[in-house]
Amino acid sequence: MRPVVISGAGMIPFERRDEDSLVDMLAGAGLSAMDDAGLGDRPVDAVYVGNMASGMFNHQVSVASALVARLNLMPAAADRIENGPASGGSAIKNGTLAIASGYYDVVLVVGGEKMREVIGPKSTDIVAAMTHPQAEYIYGVTLPAMAGMFARIYMDKYGITREHLADVSIKNQSNGLLNPYAHIQMRITKEGILTHPQAHINNPVVADPLHLYDCCPVSDGAAAVLLTTPEVAKELNKPIVKIAGFWQATDTHTLQERQDPTDLKAVTIAADKAFSMAGIQAGDIDVAELHDAFTILEIAESEHVGFFEKGEGGKAVASGETQIGGKIPINPSGGLKSRGHPVGATGVAQVVELVWQLRGEAGERQVENAANGFSLNFGGFGNNVLAFVLRREA
Amino acid sequence: MRPVVISGAGMIPFERRDEDSLVDMLAGAGLSAMDDAGLGDRPVDAVYVGNMASGMFNHQVSVASALVARLNLMPAAADRIENGPASGGSAIKNGTLAIASGYYDVVLVVGGEKMREVIGPKSTDIVAAMTHPQAEYIYGVTLPAMAGMFARIYMDKYGITREHLADVSIKNQSNGLLNPYAHIQMRITKEGILTHPQAHINNPVVADPLHLYDCCPVSDGAAAVLLTTPEVAKELNKPIVKIAGFWQATDTHTLQERQDPTDLKAVTIAADKAFSMAGIQAGDIDVAELHDAFTILEIAESEHVGFFEKGEGGKAVASGETQIGGKIPINPSGGLKSRGHPVGATGVAQVVELVWQLRGEAGERQVENAANGFSLNFGGFGNNVLAFVLRREA
Repeated sequence: MRPVVISGAGMIPFERRDEDSLVDMLAGAGLSAMDDAGLGDRPVDAVYVGNMASGMFNHQVSVASALVARLNLMPAAADRIENGPASGGSAIKNGTLAIASGYYDVVLVVGGEKMREVIGPKSTDIVAAMTHPQAEYIYGVTLPAMAGMFARIYMDKYGITREHLADVSIKNQSNGLLNPYAHIQMRITKEGILTHPQAHINNPVVADPLHLYDCCPVSDGAAAVLLTTPEVAKELNKPIVKIAGFWQATDTHTLQERQDPTDLKAVTIAADKAFSMAGIQAGDIDVAELHDAFTILEIAESEHVGFFEKGEGGKAVASGETQIGGKIPINPSGGLKSRGHPVGATGVAQVVELVWQLRGEAGERQVENAANGFSLNFGGFGNNVLAFVLRREA
Repeated sequence: MRPVVISGAGMIPFERRDEDSLVDMLAGAGLSAMDDAGLGDRPVDAVYVGNMASGMFNHQVSVASALVARLNLMPAAADRIENGPASGGSAIKNGTLAIASGYYDVVLVVGGEKMREVIGPKSTDIVAAMTHPQAEYIYGVTLPAMAGMFARIYMDKYGITREHLADVSIKNQSNGLLNPYAHIQMRITKEGILTHPQAHINNPVVADPLHLYDCCPVSDGAAAVLLTTPEVAKELNKPIVKIAGFWQATDTHTLQERQDPTDLKAVTIAADKAFSMAGIQAGDIDVAELHDAFTILEIAESEHVGFFEKGEGGKAVASGETQIGGKIPINPSGGLKSRGHPVGATGVAQVVELVWQLRGEAGERQVENAANGFSLNFGGFGNNVLAFVLRREA
């Protein structure tokens, strides 16, 4: 396999973007990544778009064909990759393999989703279309409901408290204040969301034990990376970030089929294989972007990938180990909780944040001397997971 | 790049399949390809699903995750690839690159679509969601309408007649009678669809000059191939078919932006590059599956890929050159016209037919001594096209 590097990274601010179409958003992010790489008029061989549900959200398919034309990159190849909330990670993986094979030299990967085009609960229903149609969806299960059930048993088993969950959301919303691309720009406190007499109004139950501030918002957004070979990258003007390891693993479609529903097997497999491909261990990671669609997931993932022992993830957040400046900073970008989770964009946005961190371009939220970055993109309810290890090249 | 071969091929009959869910159909095709390869308990590394619009047709996303669980192939990777009507071709291409890179050894590619879950004109509207939202869709353009406009100018420019179009549909529906997987099992005659006093009732206008029998039906179906390395293939029990060349090319999103709308540039580029990668020319092809979603497309594509000079494609059909036994048999399977066009399935079904032809397993529709096969999968209105050259290995 040829090595693959990231020479450009870019995104557009995640927010509610009523003025932009999905393709407008993809184009904005794509241009920013090409521009960041200093690509000039060097041709792009292929475009990969990570997107979950353009059909249902925007009544549009073939968005990769639309994007390649909008960016005037014809006759470059163009495909959309869909893997639920891990669509962005899958798009990067397939772009990486296309270069690794030797078939292409320059690949643009753009992840994006325009979720606010539909009204109110419709977006929750569309997201629920990733569940099992006969075993889950018809009973009204939504992703927040599933996360609530998972949170209940995980908290019981490992002694995680609502306070630990609040620590995650407070940390991530604080980090988001340092990220101009983050959707939710709002400082919250434990008093405001947990102990104040009005806390039940500020922070109502969504799916017990998860409350409003345990859940990511519904956002519009897009992010992009330009992948290439080390040879091409040397001719461009950016510090080189290598995709040192990556793996994708699946688990049962439904939570109910898992022998132990608290065991996120695909997370562990994807992370272990990515670390091993990169020749490192969890403890060597300097900065991580985890998939905190719900606060409980950041804690569970931090344990499953090996940053902490099972049952220690909650305490680690409480003691500040996962803050910027801590032992292993998690979600310096603000994570899905604050940056937002336009589903197809997320896996790419995580990698964009790592590129900025590894290059030392993360501004006020910079993790000092980050050399190895890790991202985890969590599809379904852990049924399709991608892990990436990125490394700053000297 | 490592060479990639096809060790297994399978499909389920294309028809209206009210009893099956989309995932039932994908699983049926996938199992038949694995069984055909004699895969036994050898693990599959990744599953790629070609599907255009499971969200809109079936209110389901993440169908690749659903399929990998249904087939009990976890923790294999699983992604859905979407490229409109060329989703199947794109899925095969990405599966091929994944093996070519050295990252995976065994990849299952399944293409499928369940279109008849929605009622009547809704399916035409969903297919139209691949057009440009601002420049085409809002004006009510559908794919048949676009094909009608294209047919009018192409026929004018190159002297193609309605009789030539009828020759295509009669040939393909005759071939379909020899294919147990074909949806439309009906012999038609030139008298019945063109000259009989009741012909305007048998064969009404859909989008002038295209009539009912110029258009493919709306079908449910799925097809699958098992890709692997030559080394693994030697341990399996099937004749080896190599993916000798493949290319994907794009063109403007809208027809109106093309300098000459009769020039299907992406078709020519994709075919030329695939031939060149395989080290052959168009004249070396023994059997071809072209994308005859509309009869005019089979003729236009046969010229654009180089089987015939521009303006000669219609005469070639009329003189029988594209029949089984002719100089270059086109669509011995019955093509989209007769086999059907469940959009995500088509690119894979074309390759399955070529595998059967190259192995000599095509029964009554066998093309004698076929050594080089060619398929063309046409996305959008020619805005995203894939070409494959398959070769029987001694």
